Amino acid sequence: MFGNCLENVRKLMPLVHNITNYVTVNDVANVLLACGGSPIMSDEPEDVSDITSICGGLNINIGTLNKQSIEAMFVAGAKANELGHPVLLDPVGAGASALRTNTALEIMKKIKLDIIRGNISEIKTLAIGSGTTRGVDADAADTVTEDNLEQMIDFAKNFAAKSGAVVAITGAIDLVADANKCYVIRNGHPKMSRITGTGCQLSGIATAYAVANPNNLIEAVAAAVCLMGLAGEIGVKNMKEGEGNSSLRNHIIDAIYNMDAEKLNQGAKYEIR
Amino acid sequence: MFGNCLENVRKLMPLVHNITNYVTVNDVANVLLACGGSPIMSDEPEDVSDITSICGGLNINIGTLNKQSIEAMFVAGAKANELGHPVLLDPVGAGASALRTNTALEIMKKIKLDIIRGNISEIKTLAIGSGTTRGVDADAADTVTEDNLEQMIDFAKNFAAKSGAVVAITGAIDLVADANKCYVIRNGHPKMSRITGTGCQLSGIATAYAVANPNNLIEAVAAAVCLMGLAGEIGVKNMKEGEGNSSLRNHIIDAIYNMDAEKLNQGAKYEIR
Amino acid sequence: MFGNCLENVRKLMPLVHNITNYVTVNDVANVLLACGGSPIMSDEPEDVSDITSICGGLNINIGTLNKQSIEAMFVAGAKANELGHPVLLDPVGAGASALRTNTALEIMKKIKLDIIRGNISEIKTLAIGSGTTRGVDADAADTVTEDNLEQMIDFAKNFAAKSGAVVAITGAIDLVADANKCYVIRNGHPKMSRITGTGCQLSGIATAYAVANPNNLIEAVAAAVCLMGLAGEIGVKNMKEGEGNSSLRNHIIDAIYNMDAEKLNQGAKYEIR
Repeated sequence: MFGNCLENVRKLMPLVHNITNYVTVNDVANVLLACGGSPIMSDEPEDVSDITSICGGLNINIGTLNKQSIEAMFVAGAKANELGHPVLLDPVGAGASALRTNTALEIMKKIKLDIIRGNISEIKTLAIGSGTTRGVDADAADTVTEDNLEQMIDFAKNFAAKSGAVVAITGAIDLVADANKCYVIRNGHPKMSRITGTGCQLSGIATAYAVANPNNLIEAVAAAVCLMGLAGEIGVKNMKEGEGNSSLRNHIIDAIYNMDAEKLNQGAKYEIR
Repeated sequence: MFGNCLENVRKLMPLVHNITNYVTVNDVANVLLACGGSPIMSDEPEDVSDITSICGGLNINIGTLNKQSIEAMFVAGAKANELGHPVLLDPVGAGASALRTNTALEIMKKIKLDIIRGNISEIKTLAIGSGTTRGVDADAADTVTEDNLEQMIDFAKNFAAKSGAVVAITGAIDLVADANKCYVIRNGHPKMSRITGTGCQLSGIATAYAVANPNNLIEAVAAAVCLMGLAGEIGVKNMKEGEGNSSLRNHIIDAIYNMDAEKLNQGAKYEIR
Repeated sequence: MFGNCLENVRKLMPLVHNITNYVTVNDVANVLLACGGSPIMSDEPEDVSDITSICGGLNINIGTLNKQSIEAMFVAGAKANELGHPVLLDPVGAGASALRTNTALEIMKKIKLDIIRGNISEIKTLAIGSGTTRGVDADAADTVTEDNLEQMIDFAKNFAAKSGAVVAITGAIDLVADANKCYVIRNGHPKMSRITGTGCQLSGIATAYAVANPNNLIEAVAAAVCLMGLAGEIGVKNMKEGEGNSSLRNHIIDAIYNMDAEKLNQGAKYEIR
């Protein structure tokens, strides 16, 4: 059950190495602490091998990539693979620029990824080269809906099979798939898209969940996705008169801080297909 | 009217490319979302041309410039010019170091700027080489006051004429000028200077307003300046017992999130000179 | 008294140059403003000499160091030494990677440091090469406790004597020592470790306090440590039902914003050994 996944994170307090963008990095650090993990950030090629070695998992986010951080991603990824640490790729903006698309594809080729988490446009770009990314947000034309759900589940499973990773496609409806199984998750709230970085935060959490639940990867990732969505629902509920997206950001991280196994089990809305 | 400018932003949801400092970048992203825009950050020279191409406008902020990001500013600026996208320069700390001053002057020379937004010391440095910047804050000796207002309006108009850009000088009294016209704006609150990044946030918003109001540039920038100042007033009013600058930051972004055309029209305090 | 130190900061409004990590940089800027100082960030080697020259002190934090920022640390440090500005080193993650350990040791060798502030594992790494850093957090095995207090006070004094700096070792019990004297400080709250960056924030504050209290360095640093701990206590007290670490971050910075000499004098819990 998802509640067990949560408790394993709180027990293990997994140390997660993040190579991530400077836009949302503070929120990623605080949300990792909120969920029970421990963050460390490093993107200098000469530093990352040592840092990843003392961690339990690696979260690679290409949000504000540059030549130095790209090099660091490959060095850290190789080391994490060598040590058997779970590695997550968050291909922020794949499809929006050649550098982002090519970097993400190159990472997929050279690093064994355990999890790939992105919006549908980013994932389509990696899978079939045809996402219509609108900046760092998914394009409306790509959205997972009740109408195309069957087809999108197949797509997710196929890409999981092809990539060898658990694939998490997040949006109004979230899909978490391996080759055989797909969690269809209906937690979350539209207002979450009015905050920067809920996706980046989720990638940090999912890495921590993967570290603490090594024998149950797809369930761990699905639990992290439900956790984030449920925290969004609680966060919106806790918004007071006059509050907006800045307060919502705080409410969501606070909700993750206060989440427990029972609340997560009760609040998770998913089916397995 | 300013309310129309606001509504155009909410309708168009302009995508803004930000090359900005890592101090306030998260607030810039959240305030862009709050006002109805959509942010994307990229400062790698090989990435920025693609990124700026999918955006509607470019916000260049030299706050924590380095050799890589400076190169990216010129590449992105040239591309934005080629595509006819509005470009804003926020010359953070011009006057405080030779590198910042020279970079800002070089950008003015090589990139067609639509908006230049800074405090009076930074703008004076660009205009006449004599600002007395105190770090990233304006020097008291430079302040726009009721006493020197006439003279400062002339200064702003002249610099606008010379630079070809709408010039926004923000402080206790804000001036937004082109060659012929100057908005004198009296929104805002002194406590805003106790938060980092209200200027950077305003530059992001002003870029979004420029993208969504292409035929009305000076009014769009003046609307953005009034919006930021009014949000500061509302934010201070919403501070509760025991709250300080960290909560105020949230209140201000929240106020922008909740702003509508009517509130902005009623709250804007300005005259045209 | 500590209250005087606080008032000197509010009067002088010291400008602090920070070369710091991009994880907690926004909080460092806001907390510097909250305590009465003024922050400026710059880590480009060609920029830092000018920037440090207009400031009163330099805060070097190696949290997300890279080759460029390391170079900047040495350039800025040499300039600050030349000008007689106080320099603080925050050796984030020393012991966690060779690059961090070596950079911190090299800085100690080449730059005259006035303050070194870190957790016990980081400080042990610098002092005797044997800290057991767990990422950016201190290892449990290293903790300062009532049982080993005597021995740790000696350790702090010896390292202060050897390094020539005031040494601040922060944790559940904080030690601030020079060669002859050690403040043992018992402010703070365990929940502070669930927020990223309280250590980085303290380093920024301590630099501002050193600038404003040049003839009273050890007391200034001890006052800053008490201030941060007391703000943590107030912050935790102000947490409302459903709040977590994200709100706590805001409460702490707010508490620093609202601190005055009387509250600090009354709330400070320390003895001198």
